[in-house]
Amino acid sequence: MQILDGKLASAAILESLKNAILSSSTPNGRTPHLCAIIAGNNPASESYLNSKIKGCAATGITSSIIRLDADISENEFIQQIEKVNNDQSIDGLLIQFPLPAHFNESKIINAIDPSKDVDGLHPVNAGKLALGLPTFVPATPLGIMLLLEYFKIETTGKHAVVIGRSNVIGRPISILLSRNEPFGNATVTVCHSRTSNIKDLCLSADLVVAALGKPGFLTADMIKEGSVIIDVGINSVPDSSKKSGFAIKGDVDFESVAPKCKSISPVPGGVGLMTIAAILQNTLLAYQNKFKFKS
Amino acid sequence: MQILDGKLASAAILESLKNAILSSSTPNGRTPHLCAIIAGNNPASESYLNSKIKGCAATGITSSIIRLDADISENEFIQQIEKVNNDQSIDGLLIQFPLPAHFNESKIINAIDPSKDVDGLHPVNAGKLALGLPTFVPATPLGIMLLLEYFKIETTGKHAVVIGRSNVIGRPISILLSRNEPFGNATVTVCHSRTSNIKDLCLSADLVVAALGKPGFLTADMIKEGSVIIDVGINSVPDSSKKSGFAIKGDVDFESVAPKCKSISPVPGGVGLMTIAAILQNTLLAYQNKFKFKS
Repeated sequence: MQILDGKLASAAILESLKNAILSSSTPNGRTPHLCAIIAGNNPASESYLNSKIKGCAATGITSSIIRLDADISENEFIQQIEKVNNDQSIDGLLIQFPLPAHFNESKIINAIDPSKDVDGLHPVNAGKLALGLPTFVPATPLGIMLLLEYFKIETTGKHAVVIGRSNVIGRPISILLSRNEPFGNATVTVCHSRTSNIKDLCLSADLVVAALGKPGFLTADMIKEGSVIIDVGINSVPDSSKKSGFAIKGDVDFESVAPKCKSISPVPGGVGLMTIAAILQNTLLAYQNKFKFKS
Repeated sequence: MQILDGKLASAAILESLKNAILSSSTPNGRTPHLCAIIAGNNPASESYLNSKIKGCAATGITSSIIRLDADISENEFIQQIEKVNNDQSIDGLLIQFPLPAHFNESKIINAIDPSKDVDGLHPVNAGKLALGLPTFVPATPLGIMLLLEYFKIETTGKHAVVIGRSNVIGRPISILLSRNEPFGNATVTVCHSRTSNIKDLCLSADLVVAALGKPGFLTADMIKEGSVIIDVGINSVPDSSKKSGFAIKGDVDFESVAPKCKSISPVPGGVGLMTIAAILQNTLLAYQNKFKFKS
């Protein structure tokens, strides 16, 4: 059994991004610049954001953070987005979720300049993805694709079962896995809360992507011997043995599934780390698109 | 066995569109207006276009056609699109495909004002569809959904197999069937040319959407007793018994499949007619969106 180690894969990607940035030159000589906007101080959000900022530092991407109060108005928040949209020194814009509860998420996403939308959230970028055009692929699905690529997981003609149909994970990864591209060409089934026979489907799958947000949902009796398991869950569960009082658990019951499958991505240390690498790769892409050159 | 009769269903939709248009009033009192642009005089394109124009007449939608030479330049074609985009008296814009061979399809599609894109081709509309937002659904997938709705075909929790992953049919219908909406909530598998076990998958399906463009591909031995079969194929095959020398055949071998399935859409007289109803419905939607009222 092979661990699809996100630490290993993301380190390799960060190294290659660093080299690409070092060797690239632009009309004004500046490096790529990622700007994050965060409202409030949710500890989990701060922790995610921190990892991204660290990744920027490691690869030579300039980073900046616009910190706003949790009770900021939607209009003031959008004004900040527009400021970043218009700032020629910024290539990528990241909105740290979750947004304040009183916000209309769709309105916020629509305010992002699609050419700076390194999280791939804007409808025009989601549309390009659905149409197979070059675009910013949302961070988590792109992270999964980078993981498959790093470990050279064959997907052509395989049956992939994606559990979850969310806009940010299930839907885009199902499109990526089934399109006519390297690490695509799989036959993809999307399961969700109304699927009646998830177990049978998973048992027939060569590749399972678990992205439903239920800790330990996928158990050994649900998977085929020798399949590839991608765990996208990041669930916080009570754990008295930890100082913090909780532990991070994936959607896969790692202990039972690992011995039976061919390859598995662990949580933590799997897809989560790849997501950060994906954001950084998208930032470099935004920078390259702007200066119309490839490093 | 039930025939999913597109003639019956589309007539009902056209009747309801006609009533909606009759009973609606706008600031300037005009009716919805659909404009089509066609280059060259491909007989099949002329025939499709003619059906749409007839549908306009039947429902009270004003129609107009901009006819261009097959050897028009891409830029001149785009100028015509922009003229329609800027014409406040036109609500819906239809580009009749296929385009001249020397055109960049993506460039043409991007030139369409998304708010007049009644064929749902523009990336921003494809993105809204993928994100589950209100939008213009492409005509053929919308036609299929209208057919399922008219005949009250239950899809929740069913296994739907879509054969074909095209941008205009396979991909969008797979999204529509699996989203959390009426006539959605199916567990959807997308098959394509690299799928190894199409027969097994179809045999496990409660609903098969055949959209691969191979006449008579789906045969009785590939389907489950009592399943629902939607035939999207419009293939022109030689037929000496016809005056024209050819006949229109679907992707389903109707003769063998019909006795075994629960419901089947015929070709011709099935999805094709629904596609026209869908274009007209999208035109009314564009008109309603513009005047921000619902009839």
